[in-house]
Amino acid sequence: MEEKNFDYLRELIEKGDFSLLRHELSEMNEVDIAEFLGELDHDVMLRVFRILPKDISAEVFSYLESEDQGDIISRITDTEINKLVDDLFLDDVVDLVEEVPANLVTRILKNASPETRRLINTYLNYPEESAGSIMTNEMVELHDRLTVGQAIEQIRRTGVDKETIYTCYCIDNSRHLKGTIDLADLVFHDNDALLRDIMDDDKQLIFVKTTDDQEEVAEVVKHYDLLAVPVVDTENRLVGIVTIDDILDIIEEETEEDFEKMAALLPSEDEYLKTPVHILVKNRIGWLLVLMISATLTGSIIQNFEDMLAVITGLTAAIPIITGTGGNAGNQSSTLAIRALALGEIELKDWFKVLFKEIRVAAICGVILGAANFLRMVVLHNPGGMQVYIIVSLAMFCAVLMAKMIGCMLPLLAKLVKIDPAVIAGPVISTMVDSLSLLVYFALAKAFLLR
Amino acid sequence: MEEKNFDYLRELIEKGDFSLLRHELSEMNEVDIAEFLGELDHDVMLRVFRILPKDISAEVFSYLESEDQGDIISRITDTEINKLVDDLFLDDVVDLVEEVPANLVTRILKNASPETRRLINTYLNYPEESAGSIMTNEMVELHDRLTVGQAIEQIRRTGVDKETIYTCYCIDNSRHLKGTIDLADLVFHDNDALLRDIMDDDKQLIFVKTTDDQEEVAEVVKHYDLLAVPVVDTENRLVGIVTIDDILDIIEEETEEDFEKMAALLPSEDEYLKTPVHILVKNRIGWLLVLMISATLTGSIIQNFEDMLAVITGLTAAIPIITGTGGNAGNQSSTLAIRALALGEIELKDWFKVLFKEIRVAAICGVILGAANFLRMVVLHNPGGMQVYIIVSLAMFCAVLMAKMIGCMLPLLAKLVKIDPAVIAGPVISTMVDSLSLLVYFALAKAFLLR
Repeated sequence: MEEKNFDYLRELIEKGDFSLLRHELSEMNEVDIAEFLGELDHDVMLRVFRILPKDISAEVFSYLESEDQGDIISRITDTEINKLVDDLFLDDVVDLVEEVPANLVTRILKNASPETRRLINTYLNYPEESAGSIMTNEMVELHDRLTVGQAIEQIRRTGVDKETIYTCYCIDNSRHLKGTIDLADLVFHDNDALLRDIMDDDKQLIFVKTTDDQEEVAEVVKHYDLLAVPVVDTENRLVGIVTIDDILDIIEEETEEDFEKMAALLPSEDEYLKTPVHILVKNRIGWLLVLMISATLTGSIIQNFEDMLAVITGLTAAIPIITGTGGNAGNQSSTLAIRALALGEIELKDWFKVLFKEIRVAAICGVILGAANFLRMVVLHNPGGMQVYIIVSLAMFCAVLMAKMIGCMLPLLAKLVKIDPAVIAGPVISTMVDSLSLLVYFALAKAFLLR
Repeated sequence: MEEKNFDYLRELIEKGDFSLLRHELSEMNEVDIAEFLGELDHDVMLRVFRILPKDISAEVFSYLESEDQGDIISRITDTEINKLVDDLFLDDVVDLVEEVPANLVTRILKNASPETRRLINTYLNYPEESAGSIMTNEMVELHDRLTVGQAIEQIRRTGVDKETIYTCYCIDNSRHLKGTIDLADLVFHDNDALLRDIMDDDKQLIFVKTTDDQEEVAEVVKHYDLLAVPVVDTENRLVGIVTIDDILDIIEEETEEDFEKMAALLPSEDEYLKTPVHILVKNRIGWLLVLMISATLTGSIIQNFEDMLAVITGLTAAIPIITGTGGNAGNQSSTLAIRALALGEIELKDWFKVLFKEIRVAAICGVILGAANFLRMVVLHNPGGMQVYIIVSLAMFCAVLMAKMIGCMLPLLAKLVKIDPAVIAGPVISTMVDSLSLLVYFALAKAFLLR
């Protein structure tokens, strides 16, 4: 997407023409306004935020970075906070409370209505990353004994404040979720029809529980192509909804976590440039240390064969080529296995199918790589002669075969013992493959060259 | 998400009670029905598909795997195909035509209405992965001179066949996109209001062009929290919309591509278990060969120093530990840089900020790793003595420093010269880091140990 050009707006600020600025802003998309605000100095930002038309200022606020949100909250009056919290969707208030420093949290809670305060506290008590912690309570609930006419009237009266009105949720006297009805269906039906007769009340009504993990919620929404999914409590009472825009954020967050885990990083939710150096170090050093220490195994294998390596020229130079190729081959297989698991394309019970497939792929790749390596050594007149070339090529074949088998099985094994497969990715597998392929390499060399 | 249990439905099939089965299916969600059909043998699947209530069979069909779709198309009559193509959303028909074998394409086109056939051909002509190739033409278009009452009447009459009616698109006589209006706003406004007076017609009306890349389309929808985005042709005429369910698929597809590229794989759209072995080999062998050949550089560096390695005990064993740690450190930095670029968190102009941050992180990690390595060698009584320990630890510090600098800069450089940063990931960087860190290692060893 192209960068937006806000120069004209900045000129208006410099000229001090805030009334024209207000007019220009009122014609802009709220996301763009937030982007523009984010680029301003804090003093100016606050001034511009305050002149925003009342009906859009809360939405603009919800699109600001949490840092800027905190800054605004810390500078506006109690009355303004009260108004803002009232206008924001509840899930955005909860996000805000989770992000800002403690003293601001106190101010926000103090200035929220008792009902909002109670709800915020309830939401904060749901486990992190659960449906309860990400839902909003701004949905249209309709009693299932209403008629279409009454329902539309109720939506007209109360719907403007709801996060989505496109799917309405039908409940009974005890707030149990009985069915859903699309706004479109309401519009198309006779005014006299009863909701309970026309609502979707499939046996398999789709909903999630407050305690469900957000990843599961995302799965459900994706699987059923929903715009929002209802959330019920332990007694099956409707307590909220999760909308698709939040689902997009969750999917992005979970994907990032996988990328980071697969690169031997502790997952972090912060933007790269905003993360302080000591946090970056903390997220990286653990795995680096573990992997370095475990590479000691590879080192000691080499150490054991150092005499042989010193005697036979050409053997040592091939070490990084064999281990590197093995590592890359294993990395390919583990990435495919981890992603196929994450997307539900394979399951634990498919382990043999996966293994058999990888063995065939590995055998073909191994033969090609071994042959190419042989040619490479011949063409480059590598030291060591024909016998060394053959040993190295054979070792490469074995390395690829082992790497692909380990690469595809380890993620499945991780899943079996309930470790996140993404953690068992590249670096861990490389370290294992390095040791094993060197053992095979040296064993071959010892058997055939030291006779 | 739990697996659905379809045993009861299977029993009904075995008993031959298809009328009860039909009733049960009519109460189920279309996505679940498709999942159930996908598990049946092809003969049974066709039989069950045929008894589906007419109003849901096209939707169920759209959720089937393309393989199963092809199978059904190949077995049903021309009349049935005609009906099915008519009932499907146009983007689903286009997907179908792109997936099934050529002889089935002919049958589908033959049995489509002339108008549909023309549209399919137009869509197929848009560049692959462009907005034009993924859009659908089933949107609600309203002339901007209509009143709210007339608009609602028109939606009632024609809306049921539309992919979404929640956002309606206002056009003028020449089909130019003039604004959008939410169904919710229609419902809340007086019947006499004119659309042109109440529609959203921001200066920055949000739309994409038919030729825009699908990744860009996804960015727009995500950025502006939209449920659908309008697509216009080169003359700004409204030709289609892309809905958020397709956006979710695109995001998933693009993420998978990044995972695959970063693991030195050619991207593939097929599910793992369904991809034949020779395709898997094809997607993997290219990069493996390139990386193996380029590892020759590392090999020849070792070869040049083989005499020194043979003389000084303890040097060779440290090779994989230094290169491995360097590779892991570089991999961390490159993954963060690639993802931050993909998510728009950093841009080319931030290169110095990124580099400076990585240098500080690398310095700290390098000192910790170097010290840990020194301890490790002392504790394990590694051969070579104090001098070797110091050289190896120093070399490790340098390797981490170089790895993190290269790891963060190479993706930016790739972006600068318009190569996909994801391609310049782990394996490529490891190969570079391996060579450089060995050069430093051996230079240090030569300078201090061979005096």
